[in-house]
Amino acid sequence: MYYSLLSSSICIPLAVSLQPKTTWTSTKFNNEKKVGSCTGVPRNFNMEKLQSGYLFPEIGMRESEHTQKYPHARLIRLGIGDTTEPIPDIITSAMAEHVYALSTVKGYRGYGAEQGNMELRMAIAETFYRDLGVKGNEVFVSDGAQCDISRLQLLLGSNVSMAVQDPSFPAYIDCGVIVGRAGNYQEKTGTYDNIVYMKCGPENNFFPDLSTTSRTDIIFFCSPNNPTGYAASRQQLQQLVDFAKANGSMIIYDSAYAAYVTDDSPRSIFEIPGAKEVAIEISSFSKFAGFTGVRLGWTVVPEELLYSNGFPVMKDYNRIVCTCFNGASSVAQAGGLACLSKEGYRALTTVVDYYMGNAEILVDAFSSLGLKAYGGKNAPYVWVHFPGKSSWDVFNEILEKTHIVTIPGIGFGPGGEGYVRVSGFGHRERILEASMRLKNLYK
Amino acid sequence: MYYSLLSSSICIPLAVSLQPKTTWTSTKFNNEKKVGSCTGVPRNFNMEKLQSGYLFPEIGMRESEHTQKYPHARLIRLGIGDTTEPIPDIITSAMAEHVYALSTVKGYRGYGAEQGNMELRMAIAETFYRDLGVKGNEVFVSDGAQCDISRLQLLLGSNVSMAVQDPSFPAYIDCGVIVGRAGNYQEKTGTYDNIVYMKCGPENNFFPDLSTTSRTDIIFFCSPNNPTGYAASRQQLQQLVDFAKANGSMIIYDSAYAAYVTDDSPRSIFEIPGAKEVAIEISSFSKFAGFTGVRLGWTVVPEELLYSNGFPVMKDYNRIVCTCFNGASSVAQAGGLACLSKEGYRALTTVVDYYMGNAEILVDAFSSLGLKAYGGKNAPYVWVHFPGKSSWDVFNEILEKTHIVTIPGIGFGPGGEGYVRVSGFGHRERILEASMRLKNLYK
Repeated sequence: MYYSLLSSSICIPLAVSLQPKTTWTSTKFNNEKKVGSCTGVPRNFNMEKLQSGYLFPEIGMRESEHTQKYPHARLIRLGIGDTTEPIPDIITSAMAEHVYALSTVKGYRGYGAEQGNMELRMAIAETFYRDLGVKGNEVFVSDGAQCDISRLQLLLGSNVSMAVQDPSFPAYIDCGVIVGRAGNYQEKTGTYDNIVYMKCGPENNFFPDLSTTSRTDIIFFCSPNNPTGYAASRQQLQQLVDFAKANGSMIIYDSAYAAYVTDDSPRSIFEIPGAKEVAIEISSFSKFAGFTGVRLGWTVVPEELLYSNGFPVMKDYNRIVCTCFNGASSVAQAGGLACLSKEGYRALTTVVDYYMGNAEILVDAFSSLGLKAYGGKNAPYVWVHFPGKSSWDVFNEILEKTHIVTIPGIGFGPGGEGYVRVSGFGHRERILEASMRLKNLYK
Repeated sequence: MYYSLLSSSICIPLAVSLQPKTTWTSTKFNNEKKVGSCTGVPRNFNMEKLQSGYLFPEIGMRESEHTQKYPHARLIRLGIGDTTEPIPDIITSAMAEHVYALSTVKGYRGYGAEQGNMELRMAIAETFYRDLGVKGNEVFVSDGAQCDISRLQLLLGSNVSMAVQDPSFPAYIDCGVIVGRAGNYQEKTGTYDNIVYMKCGPENNFFPDLSTTSRTDIIFFCSPNNPTGYAASRQQLQQLVDFAKANGSMIIYDSAYAAYVTDDSPRSIFEIPGAKEVAIEISSFSKFAGFTGVRLGWTVVPEELLYSNGFPVMKDYNRIVCTCFNGASSVAQAGGLACLSKEGYRALTTVVDYYMGNAEILVDAFSSLGLKAYGGKNAPYVWVHFPGKSSWDVFNEILEKTHIVTIPGIGFGPGGEGYVRVSGFGHRERILEASMRLKNLYK
């Protein structure tokens, strides 16, 4: 049978009847040009709650506008944290070898395991979690940390509460909004009603005051932090794990920048005793191996992590991976394995050091202006404070005066107001050029 | 502040107080071994509604059990539709070239556009949708059709109704369950309350009787169909589009097997006039180019497709892609572009023909047993009817007697009962061997 539906939306059925082929005509949606007839499918109300565009494409658009305005300016992109240095030969050779094998009867492989190649899972466990008790079957290889964030949100569903560091990487909140967990957005505060924002700034050594933090089911925690560049200390992470245990919370720990830690801050939440009972860890080859375009990451879901009814989280995550994902590219996985060989790993350390050298140059440049520049020590990001200023104003000022793209701190949450994030990813000569331009910012 | 929570689940707080460090202890969950203390995080009730394991890993497990039982049997895998033939050199060379460039200062590239490389998007539009009015910006490149199904489910949310062909590829339903749209599962019928099952079998020429089909917001439709191997005719698809228009429904059309169409059945829903106002199309390089492990697919979301309030679906899908995904591997995309070159495309046609030759051999084998074998003409799948038998029984019987893995039809929905799906992907000599064994099935 055919149904007609009388919608309460702005799409008006031309004829309402029980006959087939009733059609709809649309009135304009805001300033959209009408391009077709409306369906009767309601827009997902969670999507409606998302604020404007996702941050990084937004920055990209502003970049383009600037380039059109100043076609001859030599733009320096220190906004989006995108790797720029070549991938060591030993790693690309391994990928090429894998690719060539796909053209042979003997070397061709089709579907791999959804969870990733076991050799790679074991190598990840051995390289990043040696002596921490993480097993290969707890490592789920993926196409990147951002995708895993969304799969974890899908896993946990709409019926749980969540906390984030403020400022924080925007995908935690945005994916939380999409799965319907965020509540309404408050224009005035720039926050969602059902999300707990854990303020992290110099006033609390970039670690939230847990004594005033409400309990939530999920706590997103990124260390070394994007955007602040701050790595939590062992003592701070122990507090976090204790807090989660006391509250029956689950930590989703993002360690995508762990390779950049230079002091003795933990590189994994699993360095903290008891963490396997309360934490999931997301990580990535993107920033560590220049795999931003190759796409490879992983998530550790410990066997010990249980829902309130005793069901293992790992089993449900495995189901998500098998149902909603089909494994990372086998080529990327072959590259990942080469990254974890002795020679591959050593070569990558050199690249990591190079970016950290860049970050140091940027810290110096901002410091020379009398500004407080945080980060740059355990992460390639510099988090610069412009007290009393709007971060979009600062973003615009820097772009106008120096043709350098940064990211306004407010893009990472209300706690980022007054800051900009400056990325240390870039060719050295460009970073030196940026440093020179920045030193003249106020001249 | 720290909260304690008194859970109604089977996890029992040892001490209930307002003090920190309250701990939980778990009782056993079913037969699970207790491996840790419970968190207070409730299991996503949508995940609880999923029935047993996802079909394909389940088949994999049964395979392993069989291999352990008969370690010397030469197993032939015609279950999971996994490509087996080498990828033509011209395509792997292009991927290797891309990979080597990543080791050079000049050729290194980091993040690509989340929606995919524009050159590839244009090539997809030009190759698969020539004269159908699909533009490059309507093509979203991805890591595969299965992943896109889950992203589309996330896009549309829990507040819409859906229909599927019965039988159908299980990810449509399972992802629908995960986003909370399916309602309760009925053991007796093998169906979810809120999903409309559109029976497709020989009795209706594998096309649903739309005059008795209830309206839903979303209609998943796969053609050439997995598992039945049937490609809908132009007239049938015109009916489907008319039905969707009349009801204000949205079709999610899965054309992952379009390259296998040998007659004049449409290879895209957009061959049907008016489809751009009611349909999204998902497709893939997996089966067409042997990219099951390389991971590459795409989804077309036409500009003309609007929600009931006039908002363009494409805008929201773009937001999902930017927020929950970070683009397909650049290596896979380089390979995809080579697939669409004149030489690449020609080479792939040979591989497609090869698999179709396999399917023909299998159809003949089953027909020689007096069984009705459908499909195998416009798709590499053969859908064999065993009237009155349970499909798991048939699966087991074939496995026991011939050491050939198939897929029980019931795995694709209640409409698949009495059938098994047999895949034509495989080396020719293995298919011939399988054919010989099958011909002796009842001797």
